[in-house]
Amino acid sequence: MSESFTVSGLVATTPRHLVTQEGLPITSFRLASSKRRYDRSKKTWVDGETNWFTITSFRQLAINSASSVSKGDRILVCGKLKVRDWDNGERSGTSVEIEAESLGHDLVWGTTEFNRTVLVREDPEDDDSDASEVEAESQLVGAKSS
Amino acid sequence: MSESFTVSGLVATTPRHLVTQEGLPITSFRLASSKRRYDRSKKTWVDGETNWFTITSFRQLAINSASSVSKGDRILVCGKLKVRDWDNGERSGTSVEIEAESLGHDLVWGTTEFNRTVLVREDPEDDDSDASEVEAESQLVGAKSS
Amino acid sequence: MSESFTVSGLVATTPRHLVTQEGLPITSFRLASSKRRYDRSKKTWVDGETNWFTITSFRQLAINSASSVSKGDRILVCGKLKVRDWDNGERSGTSVEIEAESLGHDLVWGTTEFNRTVLVREDPEDDDSDASEVEAESQLVGAKSS
Amino acid sequence: MSESFTVSGLVATTPRHLVTQEGLPITSFRLASSKRRYDRSKKTWVDGETNWFTITSFRQLAINSASSVSKGDRILVCGKLKVRDWDNGERSGTSVEIEAESLGHDLVWGTTEFNRTVLVREDPEDDDSDASEVEAESQLVGAKSS
Repeated sequence: MSESFTVSGLVATTPRHLVTQEGLPITSFRLASSKRRYDRSKKTWVDGETNWFTITSFRQLAINSASSVSKGDRILVCGKLKVRDWDNGERSGTSVEIEAESLGHDLVWGTTEFNRTVLVREDPEDDDSDASEVEAESQLVGAKSS
Repeated sequence: MSESFTVSGLVATTPRHLVTQEGLPITSFRLASSKRRYDRSKKTWVDGETNWFTITSFRQLAINSASSVSKGDRILVCGKLKVRDWDNGERSGTSVEIEAESLGHDLVWGTTEFNRTVLVREDPEDDDSDASEVEAESQLVGAKSS
Repeated sequence: MSESFTVSGLVATTPRHLVTQEGLPITSFRLASSKRRYDRSKKTWVDGETNWFTITSFRQLAINSASSVSKGDRILVCGKLKVRDWDNGERSGTSVEIEAESLGHDLVWGTTEFNRTVLVREDPEDDDSDASEVEAESQLVGAKSS
Repeated sequence: MSESFTVSGLVATTPRHLVTQEGLPITSFRLASSKRRYDRSKKTWVDGETNWFTITSFRQLAINSASSVSKGDRILVCGKLKVRDWDNGERSGTSVEIEAESLGHDLVWGTTEFNRTVLVREDPEDDDSDASEVEAESQLVGAKSS
């Protein structure tokens, strides 16, 4: 059972890019997604409530996102949903993340010029999930929470 | 952009059923969902981390869920994902809910006897979202958080 | 990039169950799925056009589906979408299949009694896709087309 | 029950853009999507079979797609899946279309420069589905099949 999830929305923070000591590139930012619904009593479309997500990408997708995505952009993201409770000793909470498998600017909202740089995709489904990636993610979450 | 989301998992709490003063039936429970991944270094499948969701249903789906679903059952749910920050004065947090559009027992894990009771479906996409439903949801969230 | 797809609909044919010479259980049936939409000129919900799918399941899910699902039932299915061109020498066409990962009766339409028979799930993501499964699928497709 | 579907893949034909007599912009192209899977006997990732879709967009998304998307690009699309049997008198078949709600270049494969041109989105969920749109789609399908 895959828990893939696709969402479109507004990039709400400047993307943060870092490379771990192990050499793994990571980019993350916050995404605000609202769904409009038709209010029949008012006979108009109104904004629904907003879902907030942390979007995280790794490897080549992280590198390309860092150079292409800015705060205020409208994007489309597909990835794995991760709901995680965290506790850093002082505070605790729940984070809702999407680990992006694919993402791009949403052409509903503008045009793009695409420069293809990758000819053969590196392994996107490297499910043996090297420890460095998990550690790197921890560093990032730690950084965010502190 | 729809934010429909499908998840399979284990019903982790006894479903709570209530009918609001306005007559709206609501059923909710917690669902634990784990995705297995292949660990190549160990050459075996291992359980991934668990996503926890609150599953909420309304109207006929709430009535049928209340009489059919028990703690420990394996189910499949499709619905709208809702990430909400809440604050009840004393505490605050983030809830991750799925407002179910369809749900059922997952036949991967057992067999079912189906008794069809609904011949014509009531409006599943009643997007004018009568105030009573939103209020009822608030009551439920309030009840959970208090 | 997963191509998981979730659909709810009406079971339109009696499920066909077979076990291949290699011992692989397979169940398949046709599913009709219609989406209603709001027609503002008529101020009413109308049925949209119908999507037709062939739903195929393997192993334990096939066994449980064969004993639980009947023509006329309302179900929910999640699986991988497969669009395939076929040509059996005499005729050719396009088949649209969902290889089910999870499926169950949709409680929007009735109630179910669940008998859990599987305690530990067999590998649902056996991606080395033993040849027997592909061959079995070919047999099934061949049978359908002839 | 939404039948939203997300897919990433390779743009396989030069996008065709037209504006109907009623003034509705439409863009369509073919998309090839392959999913890789891990072949444990060969201990390597191999390309799975390819799903082929016709991607259709309307209004502003059609205009922006026509100026941004080229044959050979890697994109991500989210939209409604439509499986339709067609018969133009001489031939018949099954078309598998995705009516795009959002689409963009996939940053897994390159970088993009985004020029936002739309500040307030026009109604993306105009569910009264004016006849002109359906007619326009028929024209397009007719054109393709003839």
